[in-house]
Amino acid sequence: MPEHPLIRHTIELAFDYRIYWTRAVFSPGNPLLAQVLSETSRRLPVKAVACLDDGLVARQPDLPARIGGWFTANPQVATLVQPPAILPGGEAGKNEWRRVEHVWELIRDGHICRHSFVLAVGGGALLDLVGFAAATAHRGVKLIRLPTTSLAQADSGVGVKNAVNVFRRKNWVGTFSVPAAVINDVTFLGDLPPAELRAGLIETLKIALIRDRALFEWMCAERGALAALELPAIERALHRSAELHARHIATSGDPFETGSARPLDFGHWTAHKLEQISDFTISHGAAVSIGMAVDLRYAARIGLLDPADAEAILRLMADLRFPLWHPLLDQRNAAGDRAILDGLEEFREHLGGELTVTLVEAIGRGREVHAMQREDVLAAMDDLRTRSE
Amino acid sequence: MPEHPLIRHTIELAFDYRIYWTRAVFSPGNPLLAQVLSETSRRLPVKAVACLDDGLVARQPDLPARIGGWFTANPQVATLVQPPAILPGGEAGKNEWRRVEHVWELIRDGHICRHSFVLAVGGGALLDLVGFAAATAHRGVKLIRLPTTSLAQADSGVGVKNAVNVFRRKNWVGTFSVPAAVINDVTFLGDLPPAELRAGLIETLKIALIRDRALFEWMCAERGALAALELPAIERALHRSAELHARHIATSGDPFETGSARPLDFGHWTAHKLEQISDFTISHGAAVSIGMAVDLRYAARIGLLDPADAEAILRLMADLRFPLWHPLLDQRNAAGDRAILDGLEEFREHLGGELTVTLVEAIGRGREVHAMQREDVLAAMDDLRTRSE
Repeated sequence: MPEHPLIRHTIELAFDYRIYWTRAVFSPGNPLLAQVLSETSRRLPVKAVACLDDGLVARQPDLPARIGGWFTANPQVATLVQPPAILPGGEAGKNEWRRVEHVWELIRDGHICRHSFVLAVGGGALLDLVGFAAATAHRGVKLIRLPTTSLAQADSGVGVKNAVNVFRRKNWVGTFSVPAAVINDVTFLGDLPPAELRAGLIETLKIALIRDRALFEWMCAERGALAALELPAIERALHRSAELHARHIATSGDPFETGSARPLDFGHWTAHKLEQISDFTISHGAAVSIGMAVDLRYAARIGLLDPADAEAILRLMADLRFPLWHPLLDQRNAAGDRAILDGLEEFREHLGGELTVTLVEAIGRGREVHAMQREDVLAAMDDLRTRSE
Repeated sequence: MPEHPLIRHTIELAFDYRIYWTRAVFSPGNPLLAQVLSETSRRLPVKAVACLDDGLVARQPDLPARIGGWFTANPQVATLVQPPAILPGGEAGKNEWRRVEHVWELIRDGHICRHSFVLAVGGGALLDLVGFAAATAHRGVKLIRLPTTSLAQADSGVGVKNAVNVFRRKNWVGTFSVPAAVINDVTFLGDLPPAELRAGLIETLKIALIRDRALFEWMCAERGALAALELPAIERALHRSAELHARHIATSGDPFETGSARPLDFGHWTAHKLEQISDFTISHGAAVSIGMAVDLRYAARIGLLDPADAEAILRLMADLRFPLWHPLLDQRNAAGDRAILDGLEEFREHLGGELTVTLVEAIGRGREVHAMQREDVLAAMDDLRTRSE
C-alpha cells in the first residue's frame, strides 16, 4: 500500500478565440493586423515569419511583395525576419514530412520564440501543416491563420486542429491548438476557380443540415446567387458557417474532442476514405459533398430522414453543382470488398472508442448513430450512381 | 471595413491531473493500475501498448514478462495488444527522430485510438519522447507515465510537458499535454546506480530553494540519510518535490507556460547548454546541479543572496555529492568566447520574450531577474573551479 498520498489537481486553461473578417488585410491602410498583433503581444515590435500557399501565390504573384510592404509600413508593430516562404498547398502537401521540417527550419532560422508569430496564409491543408509545425516548435509559437479558400474560411481554417498525413492516413498526426487569431479576408476569394469558391458552401450546407434549418432555407432562397457564385451571398454563407463552427467548438463542452463523437463531421467518414482511395486527387470539398449525399440517402433508406427532405437537400446540392457520386466508391480492396466501407472502421479508430456517425434526422437536426448497415450504405451509393447516370 | 462582425469566444478546458504513489505496480495483487484504467475509461477492456526504457530493462530483465503477466491477470480491464517495446532511454535517445516514428508505428499497428492507452515506463527522456509521440498520434492518445528514476519521479515525469531534441537543441519540439495519470512506483528506484538515485534530490533541493524553506531544513537535518541514499528518506524527498511541482503547475495560472517566466527552472539555463556542449554525456541531474551552483554563487556575488546562505546550500550539495563544476564550463565557442554564455540567449529564445531567469534571493524564495552580468557569471564559475580544485 502506498505510504504517500495521491497528488491531485485540476488544471484549467482558457484561450481567447477570435475570428476576424476583413478585406485586403495586407493593404497599408488596413489596421486589423497591427491591432491583432498588438493585442496578443506584450512587447512590440514582434518577430514574424510568413508561410504562403503556392496555389495562392500562383494566383496573386504580388502577394509576397504586398506582405513585405505591410511589414515595412509597420516597423513599430512587427518585423518580418525573412521573405515569405512559399509552400505547396493542397492535401498532397500534407503527405510530405519534409514540409514540417521546412517550417521548423524557418522558425529556427528566424529565431521565432513563443512570443513571436507564424502567419499561415493559404488553404486548409497549408494551414494544417504550418499549424502543426508552429504548435510543436518550442512547444508552441503563436499562429495567425489567414484562410484563403472558401472551404478554410467556412470550416477547417476557423477550428482548433492541425494535422499532417502520416502512414498515408489523413490527419493521423496533429494537435489541438487554439490559434492566436484567425483573419478571414474575403478578397482572397475573388480570383478562386469556381470549384474552389463553391467548396466552402458544402461545409456551410453541412452545418446548416445538422444545426440550423434557417440557414438551409436561406441557402434554398439564395440558390440562384449561390450557384452563380455571387460573392456577397458566398461571404454571408461563409460567415454564418464559421460562426456556427466556432460556437460549437467553444460551447460543446469538448473543444479538444476527448469524447468519441465528432458532431460536425457529418458525411466525413466517406469523405476521408474517398480522399485516401483517390490518393488525395479528389478535393476535400467534393469528397464531403459525396459523403453527405451517401449519408443522406442512407438516412432516408433506413427511415431516419423524411425522403422528401432528403430529396430537397440533394436537389439543392445538384443546383449548387456539388458532386453526389464518384466511380471510386465502387473500388474494391484486396479482399474484394468495397474499399469505401473500410472507412467506417478507420473513422472509428481515428476518433477512438465507439463508432459515432452523425446523420441528419431532420433539416437542421443531427443525430448520432453507433452502427451503419453495410447493405443500406451500399444501396445508398447505388441510388446515387443511378442518379448520376 | 469589415461587413461581418468579429466572432469571439473563450475556449475553456479542464484536465484532471493525478500523481499516484505505489509499490510493485505490476504485481498481480496491486489494484492501482486497474483502478486508474477503469476510472479514466468509458468502456472496458481498453487497449494498451507499453514502451519501456532499455536502461530499466537491463536492470530488470523480467519487467516485460511482469507487465505481460499483469495484463494476462486483468483481461476484463485491459488488453496489451503487443509485447512491450524496448526503446533507448537517456537524453541521447531524444535526438533520434526515428524513435518518434517507431512509437507512432506501435500506435498504428496496435490500433491504439484516443480512448486507448500508451504506458511509458522509464526515465524522464523516455517519458518525454514517448509522450510526444502519444500526444500527436491521432491528435493525442491517452498516456500513463510511470517514471522509474528519482529525477523523473521528483520532477520531469510529473509535469505536463513532452519533447524531443531537434536541430540538436534540447526539447526544441514538443507539446504541453496532461497525462491521463502518473504512477510513481518507488520500487523501481531500488536498483538504480547511486548517481541516478541521487539525481532526484537535486530537483528536490531546487524547488526547496525557490519555494519551501522547511523542505531545505529537512534536507539539511536528513543529510546523512540522504547522502547514504537511504530509500525512505529519498522517497519522502521525491514525494514532496512532486507535490510542489504539481501545485505550481496547477495553481500558477500558466500551466502551459504562455508567459516568459519559467519559475521552476532555477539553474536550468546553464544546465541545458552544458548538456548540449557535452553532447548529452553530462546527465540532466548533474547539469542542473552545476547550473544551480553557478546561479547561487552569482546571486551571492551580486548581493542578492546572503553569502552565508549560499555557502550553506553549496555545503549541502557537496555533502550530497552533487557536482558543482565541470571543465566544459570553460569551453570556447567559434568566436573564442565562453560557449556556456550562449546558453542565456538560447534559454531566452526557447521560452520567448524577455530573458527571465529565476535566482534565489533567500532560502525558500525565488526571484526573477531579466539580465545576467556576464563578468559576474564568469567570476561565479571561476569561484566554483577554484573550489573544486
